Amino acid sequence: RINGDRLWDSLMEMAQIGPGVAGGNNRQTLTDADAEGRALFQSWCEDAGCTMGLDTLGNMFATRAGTDPDALPVYVGSHLDTQPTGGKYDGVLGVLGGLELVRSLNDLGIKTKHPIVVTNWTNEEGTRFAPAMLASGVFAGVHDQAWAEAREDAKGLKFGEELDRIGWRGDEPVGARKMHAMFELHIEQGPILEAEGTDIGVVTHGQGLSWTQVTITGKDAHTGSTPMPMRRNAGLGMARVLEAVEEIAVAHGPHAVGAAGHIDVYPNSRNVIPGKVVFTVDFRSPDLATIQDMDAQMKARAQKICDEMGLEIAFESVGGFDPVTFDAGCVSAVRSAAERLGYSHRDIISGAGHDACWINQVAPTAMIMCPCVGGLSHNEAEEISKGWAAAGADVLLHAVIETAGI
Amino acid sequence: RINGDRLWDSLMEMAQIGPGVAGGNNRQTLTDADAEGRALFQSWCEDAGCTMGLDTLGNMFATRAGTDPDALPVYVGSHLDTQPTGGKYDGVLGVLGGLELVRSLNDLGIKTKHPIVVTNWTNEEGTRFAPAMLASGVFAGVHDQAWAEAREDAKGLKFGEELDRIGWRGDEPVGARKMHAMFELHIEQGPILEAEGTDIGVVTHGQGLSWTQVTITGKDAHTGSTPMPMRRNAGLGMARVLEAVEEIAVAHGPHAVGAAGHIDVYPNSRNVIPGKVVFTVDFRSPDLATIQDMDAQMKARAQKICDEMGLEIAFESVGGFDPVTFDAGCVSAVRSAAERLGYSHRDIISGAGHDACWINQVAPTAMIMCPCVGGLSHNEAEEISKGWAAAGADVLLHAVIETAGI
Ligand SMILES: NC(=O)NCCC(=O)O
Ligand SMILES: NC(=O)NCCC(=O)O
Repeated sequence: RINGDRLWDSLMEMAQIGPGVAGGNNRQTLTDADAEGRALFQSWCEDAGCTMGLDTLGNMFATRAGTDPDALPVYVGSHLDTQPTGGKYDGVLGVLGGLELVRSLNDLGIKTKHPIVVTNWTNEEGTRFAPAMLASGVFAGVHDQAWAEAREDAKGLKFGEELDRIGWRGDEPVGARKMHAMFELHIEQGPILEAEGTDIGVVTHGQGLSWTQVTITGKDAHTGSTPMPMRRNAGLGMARVLEAVEEIAVAHGPHAVGAAGHIDVYPNSRNVIPGKVVFTVDFRSPDLATIQDMDAQMKARAQKICDEMGLEIAFESVGGFDPVTFDAGCVSAVRSAAERLGYSHRDIISGAGHDACWINQVAPTAMIMCPCVGGLSHNEAEEISKGWAAAGADVLLHAVIETAGI
Repeated sequence: RINGDRLWDSLMEMAQIGPGVAGGNNRQTLTDADAEGRALFQSWCEDAGCTMGLDTLGNMFATRAGTDPDALPVYVGSHLDTQPTGGKYDGVLGVLGGLELVRSLNDLGIKTKHPIVVTNWTNEEGTRFAPAMLASGVFAGVHDQAWAEAREDAKGLKFGEELDRIGWRGDEPVGARKMHAMFELHIEQGPILEAEGTDIGVVTHGQGLSWTQVTITGKDAHTGSTPMPMRRNAGLGMARVLEAVEEIAVAHGPHAVGAAGHIDVYPNSRNVIPGKVVFTVDFRSPDLATIQDMDAQMKARAQKICDEMGLEIAFESVGGFDPVTFDAGCVSAVRSAAERLGYSHRDIISGAGHDACWINQVAPTAMIMCPCVGGLSHNEAEEISKGWAAAGADVLLHAVIETAGI
């Protein structure tokens, strides 16, 4: 068993960096706070006897040597970046759970055949630079690195420049590493495990996602002196599209969701009819055809709405991945670890995207989930218990020992 | 007649300061660009022999002496601040039209009995600090000065502190001046005059306005892993309120308008269901009861929408004024000036708010309007012709001479 108190203390210490405004965190990717969090993680890894590798996208790889010089490493990890108003566990539990696994192996004097590598993937959240899971996507060969580095945040700052600015660009080519397997521990971010009182989610699948950025162009004009029939109100066009997004997601339910979290209005002045709005529609489902159908319906309805209102509309795909089926062998290692440890468990589908979803394309991969209070995530009030975290890390420990061999 | 070329040259020179991104201007109130525009205006006024007064809200008063030491001044003017994506004429024409009137009187060697004061009112636009016409409102005794100085922009900067920062706070108490009359020349910002080919709008009334800031609070949550029935999506609530605003304005037509130009979504992240939105609903009509009814209907419908969705909603009035009837004597001075000069003219209601709307409460006031292309304003593409500007300034000259006496 891992040391639940030590894991919790590390979670709390990391949460001091990039504090939010309501008890959570704002440690967005490639900010100064991100750099500080990375440095703390690196010092902990070195104290635990690991050597740190760093690739040219800032992905961090802390290696605990194995006994077989020819054996590929078993990877564990997740991400240390957060949403602007994020929780203390989303991502962080997977990274520090991996560190705790190494510390526990050290305590127990256990040597594994395969090396173990604890990873912190850069820009998992995708909130500052779309898409989410950007650096693991490049690692898996899904995205081009130059394209990734050219991604811009809302201020027009580029990913690559910000990586250089915070000083966390390494030398190692991205994706050069080969993996024996990869395990990601993560909070569920949904309500199922807590509602059922189940300790462990054995993640068999991940739902897919499409992010379509919608730009509606009307005409800036005076809210007072422009007659109603002359208006081309891009904000009103957006309102109608948001209603359509809701209707489409509900109609494709119960296993489909849709919403727009990102909305920018221009020029955003009380007495100017919005001339332009930019927003991102997020559709998800465990079924690829459902996602494609929702996105197609949204585009058709949005086009019709805008045509009728004299507005222009443009669509850009800014992220997405197909539903994922995790590796049967890794999934069963997770399930049998939970079984062996006496934790209640159930198979579950991940509602969120994770670095594991991309890595699954290049290595046998699985995920372990623990409950979170009220299913709440991407909220500073995100909460888990020490016991839930420890159970998840225990399962991680045992699944990894089984996979890495002793 | 005034010198149309000189007026136009001054308009173009002022438009160099605080350039926009599409040929217009971004010279928002109390920015460095505003300070630069003020300095240019002051230098022009001093060159024209005026003495500059400055009150404690930064309102500028350039005085051309009259022949009767006991006569109260006739005021002319408008504002030099612009929208973030504003035009070159909205406000500026009224200030520089006033300057041109002084220059023309100088050229012609005409002395008036009453002094003439050319005014630049601070923060007419209300885009950076709500409400609009803030400093003329304090001058007219409508707003408390301390309240005005505490108004905050989107970054939380206070009006009073920004005024000090740009160095344009004077010593003169706000509202201490007494006025014989006030005339404001302005572009129509609507489509009527151009469509009819009419040179001059004789502004008899101004429509009233209400600005209600709406805050809808839901719950930040993950767009992927939060089931549809568990969501409290503040963005979707806003979409439904925006649709209601449109329906309510149309139902109160044809002489009523409504829209939301200001919309802020929190935390504004692609994979976070909006937990909070703040937006401002702008309703206007020449009829006070209509404005009140629209605002009441909006609040009732918005409350119902939010109750049904499990959202919280709060309303705050952030600006407003009742419909205005301008002074009969000043209005007839404008009408007879247009008549005398042979310009086609018609009576018109101002769709926008103007400093004249507040000053009308403390002095006999009227407005002169000239056409603008396509009725377009609060847009960088706002355009007028040199001839239209000159006609407006001619009418200003003659109305002022009649009122100030020679
Ligand atoms: N786990 C997580 O919240 N990832 C962010 C990517 C997503 O939106 O699903
Ligand atoms: N003239 C003008 O655009 N004033 C701004 C105040 C308003 O919104 O009407």
